Amino acid sequence: MTRPPLPNDDRPRRAVIDRVRPEIDGGRFPIKRTTGERVEVIADVFVDGHDRLAAVVLYRLAEAPESPGIPHDYSWHEVWMAPAGEDRWSASFMVDVLGRWEYTVEAWADRFGSWRDELSKKYAAGLDVTSELLEGAWLVRQTAKRLGTQAAGGTPVPLREWLLGRALLMEGPDEVDLKVSAALADSLSSVMAVHADRSLATRYHRVLSVTVERPRARFGAWYEFFPRSGKSPDRSATFAEAAERLPDIAAMGFDVVYLPPVHPIGRSYRKGRNNSLVATPTDPGSPWAIGSEEGGHTAVHPDLGDLQAFREFVAAARRFNLEVALDIAFQASPDHPWVREHPEWFHHRPDGTIKYAENPPKKYQDIYPFHFEAEGAWRELWRELASVFFFWIEQGVRIFRVDNPHTKPFRFWEWAIAEIRRHHPDAIFLAEAFTRPKPMCYLAKAGFSQSYSYFTWRNTKWEITSYFEALARGGVREYMRPNLFANTPDILSRYLQTGGRPAFIVRLVLAATLGASYGIYSGFELCENEAVPGTEEYLDSEKYQFKPRDYDRPGNIKEIVARVNQARHANPALHADTSLRFHETDNDQILCYSKVSPDRRNRILVVVSLDPHHAQQGFVRVPVAEMDLSGLPSYTVRDLLDEASYTWRHDWNFVRLDPASRPAHILRIET
Amino acid sequence: MTRPPLPNDDRPRRAVIDRVRPEIDGGRFPIKRTTGERVEVIADVFVDGHDRLAAVVLYRLAEAPESPGIPHDYSWHEVWMAPAGEDRWSASFMVDVLGRWEYTVEAWADRFGSWRDELSKKYAAGLDVTSELLEGAWLVRQTAKRLGTQAAGGTPVPLREWLLGRALLMEGPDEVDLKVSAALADSLSSVMAVHADRSLATRYHRVLSVTVERPRARFGAWYEFFPRSGKSPDRSATFAEAAERLPDIAAMGFDVVYLPPVHPIGRSYRKGRNNSLVATPTDPGSPWAIGSEEGGHTAVHPDLGDLQAFREFVAAARRFNLEVALDIAFQASPDHPWVREHPEWFHHRPDGTIKYAENPPKKYQDIYPFHFEAEGAWRELWRELASVFFFWIEQGVRIFRVDNPHTKPFRFWEWAIAEIRRHHPDAIFLAEAFTRPKPMCYLAKAGFSQSYSYFTWRNTKWEITSYFEALARGGVREYMRPNLFANTPDILSRYLQTGGRPAFIVRLVLAATLGASYGIYSGFELCENEAVPGTEEYLDSEKYQFKPRDYDRPGNIKEIVARVNQARHANPALHADTSLRFHETDNDQILCYSKVSPDRRNRILVVVSLDPHHAQQGFVRVPVAEMDLSGLPSYTVRDLLDEASYTWRHDWNFVRLDPASRPAHILRIET
Repeated sequence: MTRPPLPNDDRPRRAVIDRVRPEIDGGRFPIKRTTGERVEVIADVFVDGHDRLAAVVLYRLAEAPESPGIPHDYSWHEVWMAPAGEDRWSASFMVDVLGRWEYTVEAWADRFGSWRDELSKKYAAGLDVTSELLEGAWLVRQTAKRLGTQAAGGTPVPLREWLLGRALLMEGPDEVDLKVSAALADSLSSVMAVHADRSLATRYHRVLSVTVERPRARFGAWYEFFPRSGKSPDRSATFAEAAERLPDIAAMGFDVVYLPPVHPIGRSYRKGRNNSLVATPTDPGSPWAIGSEEGGHTAVHPDLGDLQAFREFVAAARRFNLEVALDIAFQASPDHPWVREHPEWFHHRPDGTIKYAENPPKKYQDIYPFHFEAEGAWRELWRELASVFFFWIEQGVRIFRVDNPHTKPFRFWEWAIAEIRRHHPDAIFLAEAFTRPKPMCYLAKAGFSQSYSYFTWRNTKWEITSYFEALARGGVREYMRPNLFANTPDILSRYLQTGGRPAFIVRLVLAATLGASYGIYSGFELCENEAVPGTEEYLDSEKYQFKPRDYDRPGNIKEIVARVNQARHANPALHADTSLRFHETDNDQILCYSKVSPDRRNRILVVVSLDPHHAQQGFVRVPVAEMDLSGLPSYTVRDLLDEASYTWRHDWNFVRLDPASRPAHILRIET
Repeated sequence: MTRPPLPNDDRPRRAVIDRVRPEIDGGRFPIKRTTGERVEVIADVFVDGHDRLAAVVLYRLAEAPESPGIPHDYSWHEVWMAPAGEDRWSASFMVDVLGRWEYTVEAWADRFGSWRDELSKKYAAGLDVTSELLEGAWLVRQTAKRLGTQAAGGTPVPLREWLLGRALLMEGPDEVDLKVSAALADSLSSVMAVHADRSLATRYHRVLSVTVERPRARFGAWYEFFPRSGKSPDRSATFAEAAERLPDIAAMGFDVVYLPPVHPIGRSYRKGRNNSLVATPTDPGSPWAIGSEEGGHTAVHPDLGDLQAFREFVAAARRFNLEVALDIAFQASPDHPWVREHPEWFHHRPDGTIKYAENPPKKYQDIYPFHFEAEGAWRELWRELASVFFFWIEQGVRIFRVDNPHTKPFRFWEWAIAEIRRHHPDAIFLAEAFTRPKPMCYLAKAGFSQSYSYFTWRNTKWEITSYFEALARGGVREYMRPNLFANTPDILSRYLQTGGRPAFIVRLVLAATLGASYGIYSGFELCENEAVPGTEEYLDSEKYQFKPRDYDRPGNIKEIVARVNQARHANPALHADTSLRFHETDNDQILCYSKVSPDRRNRILVVVSLDPHHAQQGFVRVPVAEMDLSGLPSYTVRDLLDEASYTWRHDWNFVRLDPASRPAHILRIET
């Protein structure tokens, strides 16, 4: 008779651990968290037959830069999982150190627990339990054998002796009632559980990773401005002059000041005003045409100042509690020093010229893309580009907005961001990829902390609801954090072009409350809305010229921006996106949604009229159960924009929103 | 300045391959197919920037037993993937050899294709393309260099020279129109695609597996009967007598004859009639109390005959085109030879007795479970149990119905089934696990070919629809194949107990058309429906006594069973479950669903009244678009149960179903 070989398994492990989540693509990518957040781990755990089960989540800090004198604890910790129905078990742990964390699951058949169940059922049924008590005593003795001389909780008796005493009682001549009580005592259960024999435990076959970043990766209000735009239309402002904008930006309550590229700008094929092909001698050129004889990606435009001036700007921002984010755009003007020093990093055509950026028949002759596949040279190019981040980190920058990452190899980003994070886990990367959904998601998986989104083009109730619900589906929330820019130097949306001041307020409130991270580009607070006709481009775009502004001019919404940012800071519900839920309204122009803080004590309900032209009114349905308002006769909602407060009852409540006076409520629920 | 190390990547691979499916739990488990079926592979594939992309599915037979003289082809084959929208690409391949297959995906930036796009756009825009033509010629020359002296399709000119000629034309003095036409020619495109430079191609990081079984694993009608029940209530029939049942079973159109255990039955604690604790000396005992002094899992009950008689029964069945399935129940009566020979394979209590099966306070003293974790002995036990399958395979059996696999370690099954399949890829395993959904699914993932299901307890329209839709969700269809038993010796459902003959017809039609695999236990065709009151147990259950039957008694539904099985055989739509779709009806007692064959030429629409007591009528909505009936003025549907045919129009059509005459239609659509 044919016989199979003996099994190779080292032990007969009976517990099954299946479908551990969160888990992205079979563990190919880490999930993301920020310090102070929790990871809730769920798994399907079961064992053959009717035995009881025990399971733990194992977690540890796996990789973090060493701080001198403070060694990290890399050991595994564990937290007991609890059954959550239908063979699902769950437990959560908090991450509190920047770096890479790991987690997995371990489970085992709980022999003592199963035996205890059996004893208690048989005893209740009046059966003879002599043999069962002997079996239990044997289990207790086995555990005692494995133990040293640890003290039992609260008693000076060594645990081992305490267990042996219990075994003796269970085996001894006492009355069965006493023996059973002693056997079923909770004190014994917990000691036996903690010291369970795990030699046959099953470990999940994968160890999963968490990228832990600082809270700013999750929550922050961004303000984008061109430091070269000062008081004069004819010359660049300096960093010192740009720093004069900081008090105003800080007063509006922003957290991050994001600067377009600050490098020397090429002269060849420089674009003139409104993107014209011919520049006048005084046109400053686009900051994204990086590099001139004065330097490239690690230089500062001489008109702005020098590196020292840049560092002083960063320090000045810090005094206003503002952090500087830099734009990293990996492309070169024909005048970039690397074009001469490293011609091998560019793609040469058969006629010897370098291939410029194109989207035929459009030509971008002021920009050379890098040749990321360059034979024999790509490794040096990749390293040099990654070094650019290290350079700016050394100048005090920790936040990078990366220009068009989807036009560079995805693998480059995965490698570069991992290398940077290994040394600087506080570095934050925002992907400016306006492309198809899957490449956008992949950039997030590959390591970007945050992602630009389609928010600018989502204006109707259906568009907004379905987009934000899609961002929550299929675990996308575990790795992708949208940063909702309400406008950018490239995008002045139709809604803003046509909706006047109320449109700006509506989009501000939406961006700032739908997104824990959001941003505006300067001019937004002035409701600038003049576009090149038929496009989303700003007329007289700041990309090609200096643009002095009167930031206090009438009609500005700085006061409202400040109130919104104040509401954001004061309300933890608005510091994350995971709790976002949309709610019913009876008017398609009125959008209603809520967010709650992790401890559920801070509850925010946002009601926005999407119509910038007419007053809208209707009923909104408050999710009373989710908001812990069930059964209350009434509750107060306070508008954080104007401190008005209202007494509401039950779920459906009336609102009236007028674009002229109050297009939105940001309501805190107070009970 | 800090600089990162050079990247370790061997090459700058730009294509991204993400979320290849089907893929179960990150490739932890294989998907399942039967020979002749296709695997459709879908992946998200994209590349940075605007380059064109090419992708292939790679597949191969990876593991199959060698047949002498016919070596297998284990080499990788490939099939080109086509874009399917939103960055999804797909391709399919057929599996035609039993064993384990593998598949993965490879993709690369299509340099020639991208160049061709660019040339064609620029040429159309009237731009100078001299440089582009030179670049293309260079690409063509590079490809020529890599080639040997293969002949181009249909021409005797060596491919290399043909390519060089084309390059010369593109570089030469000809008119630009001619050069561009030559450059854009499809002939050049296809040669360049087939011989693309794949040195920078990306390979998906996992190789995924397919378990390929024979079609019987997917499609078959099972008939279960106790071979010991013959003409006398007082003695066991022999295998020779049992074989007399085969013509009748074959006439009903069954494919598989499944026998409960045929081994010697223990005497200790033998159960009497109707599961009574005391057996009379003539009670035969339950076949699941396996083992006596006459032998255990590899012996045959002497009253049935010997091994030779068993093999003759198998051969007789084969002559009727019936295959024998055996019941494998891993448990032992106290009289099993292993109890004496291998006491270490059982769990001993402190008082020296062996632990019998229990579900406190219930005791099953006639059954000892095996101790799958037995220290120092479990490997031998596992091997011995796996050997039982090998033994019966040598007796000619290839189908095994495994009793209660969920009460044995899941890991045991995964190991044992893999070992058996390595030698006998034609072995089929049906898991009899009536337990919670997740352990049931896991047994299927771990290797079982088929699974018992909750079908017996799904009677209403909502129950049936939601259950079968759940079986299709989340990729479950890729690994789990339900086998729908309409009754079993353990389950006489309330619906059958109370619905009379029409109930049996309804459940027969449902089982046989919802499930490509289905089964009945003998007596079903006689509409036996007497239960132990308040239970689902048969009264005078055949599990504990001989049960002679008159298989031709009035009221039997053998003719209908035969017609149903005939319809199954003749209609490929009913050979698989993947195409199952439910359709609207305007009467909650009327269920309507369809299946189509892979080539869509065979279309079956089933309409069943779930009410066994009253006539029901209403409209059913034919899925005209899915059934390729759109725009037809009318079409014919033919009832395969009685050959009646109807002319139907558009989507909504009328049906009337009477339990007394016709409780169901199995309609073939004929156009």
